[in-house]
Parts: sequence; C-alpha cells; structure tokens
Amino acid sequence: MKFGRFQHQSRTFYGLVEGEQVVELDGSPFTSYKPTSNAHLLSALKILTPCEPRNFYCAGLNYAAHIEWAAKRKGLAVKLPEKADVGYRSPNALCATDEPIVIPADATEMVQFEGELVAVVGKTAKHLTEDNALSCILGYTLGNDVSERSWQKSDRTLWRAKNCDSWKPMGPFIVTGLDPMNLDVEIRIDSQRVAGYNTSKMLFSAQRYIAEITKYMTLHPGDVIWLGTDDATEPNLAHGQVCEIVQKDIGVLRNPVVREKA
Amino acid sequence: MKFGRFQHQSRTFYGLVEGEQVVELDGSPFTSYKPTSNAHLLSALKILTPCEPRNFYCAGLNYAAHIEWAAKRKGLAVKLPEKADVGYRSPNALCATDEPIVIPADATEMVQFEGELVAVVGKTAKHLTEDNALSCILGYTLGNDVSERSWQKSDRTLWRAKNCDSWKPMGPFIVTGLDPMNLDVEIRIDSQRVAGYNTSKMLFSAQRYIAEITKYMTLHPGDVIWLGTDDATEPNLAHGQVCEIVQKDIGVLRNPVVREKA
Repeated sequence: MKFGRFQHQSRTFYGLVEGEQVVELDGSPFTSYKPTSNAHLLSALKILTPCEPRNFYCAGLNYAAHIEWAAKRKGLAVKLPEKADVGYRSPNALCATDEPIVIPADATEMVQFEGELVAVVGKTAKHLTEDNALSCILGYTLGNDVSERSWQKSDRTLWRAKNCDSWKPMGPFIVTGLDPMNLDVEIRIDSQRVAGYNTSKMLFSAQRYIAEITKYMTLHPGDVIWLGTDDATEPNLAHGQVCEIVQKDIGVLRNPVVREKA
Repeated sequence: MKFGRFQHQSRTFYGLVEGEQVVELDGSPFTSYKPTSNAHLLSALKILTPCEPRNFYCAGLNYAAHIEWAAKRKGLAVKLPEKADVGYRSPNALCATDEPIVIPADATEMVQFEGELVAVVGKTAKHLTEDNALSCILGYTLGNDVSERSWQKSDRTLWRAKNCDSWKPMGPFIVTGLDPMNLDVEIRIDSQRVAGYNTSKMLFSAQRYIAEITKYMTLHPGDVIWLGTDDATEPNLAHGQVCEIVQKDIGVLRNPVVREKA
C-alpha cells in the first residue's frame, strides 16, 4: 500500500495512492482509518510530507563508500563507526516534494544532497530485538539530508549544517511491504543521475538501529529513522537546479533549489 | 501569568494557575484561549509537561563555571565555546513533574542532573534580532537535562547520554513576564541544595541564541530552547532519591529517581 498526506484547498487528509488516484481516508495510518468515498486525482492535490514526526532520528555514517569518499575529500584517514549511534535532525527543516530547498545567502557553495531511505514508525515500540524490529515500521519513504559542508566542519553541532528550514525534504509517499535492506536509491540533478547505491550496503541495518534505539527510547507512531547515504554527494546543489531522490516503489522526491539573495 | 497543561480523568487541557486553583482554558496559550467557568484544585489534577515541543533546542555549554568544572573533572584544558551553536534533544525523553527519571539497568552510576531555564516559544518567528528576540517567547519553565557521563564520552552523539525515555523532565508551569537573564536556579537532592546559579552568567544570552537560531530556522509555537546549566552537576542521581529544580516564580520541577532492574 502507498499512503500519502495531502492538502486540498484548506483541508488536510491522509490518502491511499492508487495509480493516479487518491482515495481519501477517514483517520490516519498511524491510528486507525477507513477509506471514504472521496476520490481525487493525484495531480489535483498538494502532496505534504507523509507524516509529521516528533522524534527525527538519523543514522549518520552508515555506508562505507560514502565515509571513504568524505574522508578522502578532507584528506583524513577512513574511520568506520563501531556502533550504531543514532543522531537527530529537527522537524522545522522538513519540507514536502515539489517545495524548494532554500539556501541561505551566507551559505558557501558546498551545499550537497544526501539521498536516503527513511523508515516510518507505525506503532509504539520499546525493547525490540533485531528479529522483531521491523514489526513497528509502517513503511518506507525517501529523504534528502541536505548539508552545508563548511558549517559541518566549523560548528560544534550539526544545527545549521543540516537543519536549516527546508533542508530535510521527505516523501513523496510511505510504501508498505518493502525490504529496507535491498532497495536501489538513485539521486538525480536536472534529470541526470549523479549518485546511487543499494541499501544492502548499510553498515548497520535498519533492524539493528531500531533494536539499539529501543533499548533506551520509545518509538512513537510517525517518528522517522533516516538510514544514511552512500556514494559521493557531489556536485553541489545550485540555484535553479532540481534535485530528485528516486526509488522505483516509493517514487520521486523532487525539490527545486533556490538561493536566497543577500 | 502561569500556564500549565493538565489531565483530569481522561481529559487534557491548558489552565491558568492562580494559587492553589486552576482555571481551565478553552484553547491554548499557543493559539488562542478563553478562560472557562471550570475551576479545579491544583492538587486534584495531574500536571503534564507544559507544552509538547516539535523542535527541542538545547544550548550545550553556556556557563563558564560548569565548563571549567567539567574540564577539570576530565583532566582537560578549559575551552569556552566561541559561537552560540545550538544542539538538539528529542521529545521522546520528556516527562512531567512528579514522573520518575528511570535509569536503564546498563547505565553507569554517573547519571547526573543539569538544572536549566527553558524559554518556551509562543509565536512563529524568523530573522529576529537580539533586540526583538524575546517577542516570540511566551514564557519560561524549568528543565532537567539528565545525562549519563560515560555514554557522553563513548558515543559518537548524545543520543542515549541525554535522550533516554524520561531523561528530560520539564515543567511544572510556563510563567510570563520574567527576565531570563536574572533568575536564581537551584538544584536539590532529597531537599538539600546541591548546586545553584544565576542565569546572568550565561555565556550567550537567550536573546543571542534566539537571534542565531532564527537566522536559519523558523521557531514554532511550543518549541523550547533549554538554556544550559552552570555549577557542578554532582552528586550522581541514585535510585530512591528525589531531584528538584527550583526557581521561585516558576516553581519546583520534582522527579523521583528509579533504577531499572537488570
């Protein structure tokens, strides 16, 4: 199944996406829902982020080839993480597909994409094991962990390097029944492939992250776990481009890039 | 004014605290509200966290004496931060006054309090200056940034060192009209003062943090900015103790400490 969150005029609702049609739901996939008799053309709706997380987890360094690429670029030795230590992003930064990634005027040119698979929590969960970890997951969506590399280096935390308004595009839909450990993710700029990888290359699996997190933290419906990126994350994003994160079952997360004027 | 969020039987509502009475509100201080004719005895209500933040900002190192104490304890040179780089905590960890701080069985003994002043955002805001920064703040509450010092050292991020379930007590009430830069905060264990400071000692003021954050991020009603702690944060918190963060206008944030059995 393919769930989305939509706006039509002033109304906001969840829907089931079936081809070019959206069946409006009464309720939500995070609580309970019933299909209604309202059907819409997908093209007539504004697509919103498919959920509104309160807790926004992010697996930082989770693919060897990306870590090696980043280390080489900085002239540093490659150091793979030894533990599945999760990080955080902040919901202020979320935006939906088709909304612009806005680069503040004082950012350097080194603003880069990171195309990621995102696990969306459907059920309250604690103390899961790797074997039953995926039982709390409703489905999967896509994310773009937009990052400013000079701020990532200069600041004590990742606050503005990763969390500027609009720097966390997420969507377009949540798809159930996928194997998170075997999906091809591709990143395109202006329709040209610039990077790609298969999620089987994760250093720590989705299951492992969920088991680790739930040793200490309760996962709640609508929480998201971004699972990291592989490959290089160049070229830089520039004003006027369109960046797409693509996975064939989930769809295309597409965002134009705009640089603010000083 | 003193706002709180309360539960009575299965109902949840905002209220205005007037002495030992709570006047129930229709609406919330984050949108709009009207006092109702329902009044309750404060002692008859469960006090909830006074807001439900989506974005949970936290000024890490914001008082020199605390930084000096921590550096000395670790045998490191004192290094004060040069910029107001804000960090994040996660809402899963919030708990209300009177709820237990639960220490996981595998935590070391080095679980410590950090009593903090918390600014609560009341209005959507971006691009504020230090001069008008406080215009977006509804009022102030208290927080306890409970921290496991061995995990803080060993992990790549602060995820479990700071964000275990129940490790972010916040409350009891939000008080308007306070000067955030001149409040006495005291920490007590089992009614004995163990630490205290005046917020005038902040390295970067509340105004400065808000101006910095809103260069890049939109603040939303209900977001919180924890403003850091001063002084030592010992002794460790132990099973059976009660930890209190106290400020005379806001009140007492009081949490018993429980260690989970292995």
